[in-house]
Amino acid sequence: MSKIGIIMGSTSDMPVMQEAIDILRSFEIEVEVDIVSAHRTPEKLFDYGQNAHTRGIKVVIAGAGGAAHLPGMIASLSPLPVIGVPVKSSNSIDGWDSVLSILQMPGGVPVATVALNGAKNAGILAAQIIGSSNPHVLQKIVDYKKSLRQKVIEGAKSIRK
Amino acid sequence: MSKIGIIMGSTSDMPVMQEAIDILRSFEIEVEVDIVSAHRTPEKLFDYGQNAHTRGIKVVIAGAGGAAHLPGMIASLSPLPVIGVPVKSSNSIDGWDSVLSILQMPGGVPVATVALNGAKNAGILAAQIIGSSNPHVLQKIVDYKKSLRQKVIEGAKSIRK
Amino acid sequence: MSKIGIIMGSTSDMPVMQEAIDILRSFEIEVEVDIVSAHRTPEKLFDYGQNAHTRGIKVVIAGAGGAAHLPGMIASLSPLPVIGVPVKSSNSIDGWDSVLSILQMPGGVPVATVALNGAKNAGILAAQIIGSSNPHVLQKIVDYKKSLRQKVIEGAKSIRK
Amino acid sequence: MSKIGIIMGSTSDMPVMQEAIDILRSFEIEVEVDIVSAHRTPEKLFDYGQNAHTRGIKVVIAGAGGAAHLPGMIASLSPLPVIGVPVKSSNSIDGWDSVLSILQMPGGVPVATVALNGAKNAGILAAQIIGSSNPHVLQKIVDYKKSLRQKVIEGAKSIRK
Amino acid sequence: MSKIGIIMGSTSDMPVMQEAIDILRSFEIEVEVDIVSAHRTPEKLFDYGQNAHTRGIKVVIAGAGGAAHLPGMIASLSPLPVIGVPVKSSNSIDGWDSVLSILQMPGGVPVATVALNGAKNAGILAAQIIGSSNPHVLQKIVDYKKSLRQKVIEGAKSIRK
Amino acid sequence: MSKIGIIMGSTSDMPVMQEAIDILRSFEIEVEVDIVSAHRTPEKLFDYGQNAHTRGIKVVIAGAGGAAHLPGMIASLSPLPVIGVPVKSSNSIDGWDSVLSILQMPGGVPVATVALNGAKNAGILAAQIIGSSNPHVLQKIVDYKKSLRQKVIEGAKSIRK
Amino acid sequence: MSKIGIIMGSTSDMPVMQEAIDILRSFEIEVEVDIVSAHRTPEKLFDYGQNAHTRGIKVVIAGAGGAAHLPGMIASLSPLPVIGVPVKSSNSIDGWDSVLSILQMPGGVPVATVALNGAKNAGILAAQIIGSSNPHVLQKIVDYKKSLRQKVIEGAKSIRK
Amino acid sequence: MSKIGIIMGSTSDMPVMQEAIDILRSFEIEVEVDIVSAHRTPEKLFDYGQNAHTRGIKVVIAGAGGAAHLPGMIASLSPLPVIGVPVKSSNSIDGWDSVLSILQMPGGVPVATVALNGAKNAGILAAQIIGSSNPHVLQKIVDYKKSLRQKVIEGAKSIRK
Repeated sequence: MSKIGIIMGSTSDMPVMQEAIDILRSFEIEVEVDIVSAHRTPEKLFDYGQNAHTRGIKVVIAGAGGAAHLPGMIASLSPLPVIGVPVKSSNSIDGWDSVLSILQMPGGVPVATVALNGAKNAGILAAQIIGSSNPHVLQKIVDYKKSLRQKVIEGAKSIRK
Repeated sequence: MSKIGIIMGSTSDMPVMQEAIDILRSFEIEVEVDIVSAHRTPEKLFDYGQNAHTRGIKVVIAGAGGAAHLPGMIASLSPLPVIGVPVKSSNSIDGWDSVLSILQMPGGVPVATVALNGAKNAGILAAQIIGSSNPHVLQKIVDYKKSLRQKVIEGAKSIRK
Repeated sequence: MSKIGIIMGSTSDMPVMQEAIDILRSFEIEVEVDIVSAHRTPEKLFDYGQNAHTRGIKVVIAGAGGAAHLPGMIASLSPLPVIGVPVKSSNSIDGWDSVLSILQMPGGVPVATVALNGAKNAGILAAQIIGSSNPHVLQKIVDYKKSLRQKVIEGAKSIRK
Repeated sequence: MSKIGIIMGSTSDMPVMQEAIDILRSFEIEVEVDIVSAHRTPEKLFDYGQNAHTRGIKVVIAGAGGAAHLPGMIASLSPLPVIGVPVKSSNSIDGWDSVLSILQMPGGVPVATVALNGAKNAGILAAQIIGSSNPHVLQKIVDYKKSLRQKVIEGAKSIRK
Repeated sequence: MSKIGIIMGSTSDMPVMQEAIDILRSFEIEVEVDIVSAHRTPEKLFDYGQNAHTRGIKVVIAGAGGAAHLPGMIASLSPLPVIGVPVKSSNSIDGWDSVLSILQMPGGVPVATVALNGAKNAGILAAQIIGSSNPHVLQKIVDYKKSLRQKVIEGAKSIRK
Repeated sequence: MSKIGIIMGSTSDMPVMQEAIDILRSFEIEVEVDIVSAHRTPEKLFDYGQNAHTRGIKVVIAGAGGAAHLPGMIASLSPLPVIGVPVKSSNSIDGWDSVLSILQMPGGVPVATVALNGAKNAGILAAQIIGSSNPHVLQKIVDYKKSLRQKVIEGAKSIRK
Repeated sequence: MSKIGIIMGSTSDMPVMQEAIDILRSFEIEVEVDIVSAHRTPEKLFDYGQNAHTRGIKVVIAGAGGAAHLPGMIASLSPLPVIGVPVKSSNSIDGWDSVLSILQMPGGVPVATVALNGAKNAGILAAQIIGSSNPHVLQKIVDYKKSLRQKVIEGAKSIRK
Repeated sequence: MSKIGIIMGSTSDMPVMQEAIDILRSFEIEVEVDIVSAHRTPEKLFDYGQNAHTRGIKVVIAGAGGAAHLPGMIASLSPLPVIGVPVKSSNSIDGWDSVLSILQMPGGVPVATVALNGAKNAGILAAQIIGSSNPHVLQKIVDYKKSLRQKVIEGAKSIRK
């Protein structure tokens, strides 16, 4: 079965990254969660990047803050699509460091970057990637979008009262 | 067959976006190129966003500059993964407007954003998404990464002389 | 009668946008308030933008945060003047994303942008637009400016004591 | 007849501001062009701001660069809607100073700000303001939007070849 | 006797500007405090700027936030040196708007800008300007600098313990 | 006689700083020009800062780029008013480094900062400081402002033709 | 014995700089702590910079905020490697001023800059500099890196549960 | 003998990095130059980082642009001091991405960052690190600083003429 690998640089990123886990589980897509630090566990980084695609992982979601090298280094090592979540960590300069060090990858090595702290969207994007070749998951995305619409329509009703 | 839809807000984005077309063709992945302006052809935008997935498109790459709404609006309308390319257009404030108006999508509607003018990476990312469920394309990505490595190793040789 | 349409992307924008409603009501100008999300209710967006001018609305005030596409998309669809209010939402990067994705519209499709969270000024600007062809409303603007002056003069008195 | 006042801080702003003049003339709306410097001709600024609405001007378009005080000071003095064009002048810090000193007006005194160097959009916005109460001008806006669409559709054709 | 005029755009700027008053009083330099709003009391602004130098004021300190036009407009109207204090007001975008709209004055009309919320330094700078032609005040500056040094030396002692 | 000290960190700053020299000479105020590098001639910096006021200098104008420490260090050493000119040097990050390292001085040690590359305004500000206690120089400032106005009025005439 | 000099501009920087002291002590490297203000104790700055290397100090760590001149001025005066710690002080503009005024030193006078508030890393870097010629200290760095890895691995275990 | 390792992500960084080579050779310090790309040759990166200190390298200078991960990844893998040179590459957003992705390293893994394109300073800093334990090299730094001073003094002479 398709599986999404969700990794982050530190346990302190967990509150942000939990949203990716939750949304993927709501789509009934299997996730595998781990801590992989580009700067403190480089061997694990290397192993993860080189082998993720050989054990059933289809997309990697990587969250990190500050000079965030985890998503880009996984993208360097793995042929899989890598989604980067810039985390606004406590030492970040308003999040700009996280965003730019994930987004501005050189030609040849893309990272699919989502909004600052946008782990939920990272999860949805991973589901869309699965859905791109899996009609069953694609339908779940279509349904999810309908539910978003429904909530806005109800919000609109409450405001017009 | 899988097909990548490549759209842009204006013909003036073509020099940047051509790199996405070229790299995808080098991977022998079919592309369909069009101009769709969120601000000047909203009906076409709607039609494109609502129907792309029904006619064989698996991933949409959308490039735009300034207050760049094309990628986000396609992501709003389509269940497909949407890759956004922030284009540094002539009126852009150093590219910050393009980057932020594509990247900072609200929860529920992701855009997979690549670097400023990073159309080549958008193409590679689209191929990786196809490759995620297609071993043949995955192998091409693996080979491409080897070719990148080879070029650096040759550059290193020339410098050590 | 002239009517101002006030829309916003989410009920969470209401505390900011309320100031536009209040100031317009103090000028006795009719307002119509609704939630229209560019990213979650694109069909409603389309309908709103294409029809607002046909049912008595003279100016649209649209507030949104982050990658804020609502004001620009309404400006794309409607011939009416559109006033954009960049909202500093919780996920915003200090408001820069909201400001730039509303302000930096391409040639041909203007949005009249006001300050970050400046919904009060959006309301006054809408009244000035009505007042531009309506001497009765113009006089209210003149009177409002006098009241601003008066408050400053009283503040100055209290400080000199 | 309705007339649009177009002013700028210096003759060096003319190449940018010419686009506002041209688009308004294409809509057959009368314009009155002048140089008014907030910092070098403050008396003229005061006179202009206090009297523009008494001599047939319906909207003021004011362009300025750097610490750009002209649009805000006219908005302070006049009950008319004021459209501000941030000009990227030679001494500007990438245009940020022009944008922020026009956009971030305090509560009570709005300036309808358009994109950096966005004089063309300032002209269109002024026409939309006139059109808001003038069906003849509103129709011109509708037609103009159609012409924008047509150009994109032709660009799209040329690219698909 | 020499007198320093201290003005600000709003009573809400008083907590910041109080530091300028306090330091000048500690130097026994007379101050005159007032509220003058560029945007809400333009006539008072005009009167203040044109006449301050005729009634004994030697330097003007002007504090304002957001699109801060007060210091620059006084500099436009008065031949006196004008010190601008960028105030980080509640609506400011991290203070950048206040700083840039005071600092980036065009050639011909300087404002002596101090740090964000730097009213204390504005007071010291005003005293230095007086001291530039008044040996008695110059000596006070020399003494003040000695007292700063003394405090640091005592802080250093406490830390080495 | 009153004299203005003009210093800069490097001969490469001379093209920018020449404007301060020229405008002060047009006011017939004596200037003394020197190169003083905070980072390469710290002894000269110390000597200059400690002694400038003892040999007839009334105001120091200091220009520097990048991590620009010259104006602040002179302000640390001298009781005179110090005017800082942020120079956009070749290695500067768009001038932000020059601006912030001159402007953001700590409490107790002000630098009167002018616009990026604003040496002309630094010269005018120095003249205003002299003029603050010298009616003859004050009158020159008044006349200079009239000449600015005159040029704008002539520019306005040429544009209305 | 090798000694690290740790200085800061103000006692208010102590909470940030304490981390440098702690980490160096954990490596059993001697530290000497002092307050040296570039702007308030320039003579002490001069003395410190010129003499530190003559009394056994091998590396200087200097922390400062705002227009932070301490690290750069020490680098100007001393032949030793100087590590700069940008401190996010209360008056700082989000830390940008501290970072840029330490980082952007002109050619010839480097400051080894670490992250905003990164005093811990300054301490580690100082230890690495000692370790570069001292195998005993080098081994401590190797061990420290192992301990970092260990903590991440334990965090990963707790998350997988 | 002590040796400095100089690496960069791409041959296109060579024009910037050449300055580090030149200044170190002028100090008669041996350099070893190589191309190591974090994103395209990750195996070489790992090998370099893990082994540099075992073959006589005392300091690593690493230059890279955009999302620049090379310096930080070497710092992750090596116990040596690592100096990072942010390169303003063609795709960089004004250099901010290069600066922030090198500077903002997490606690535990420092990179000694120098100014944008500051390779010359990286070379001097490396020499200072060697000089910290080598009196012969320390003396060269002292002499180099004297030569800087001399050039400024001569520049000053030419300007006073």
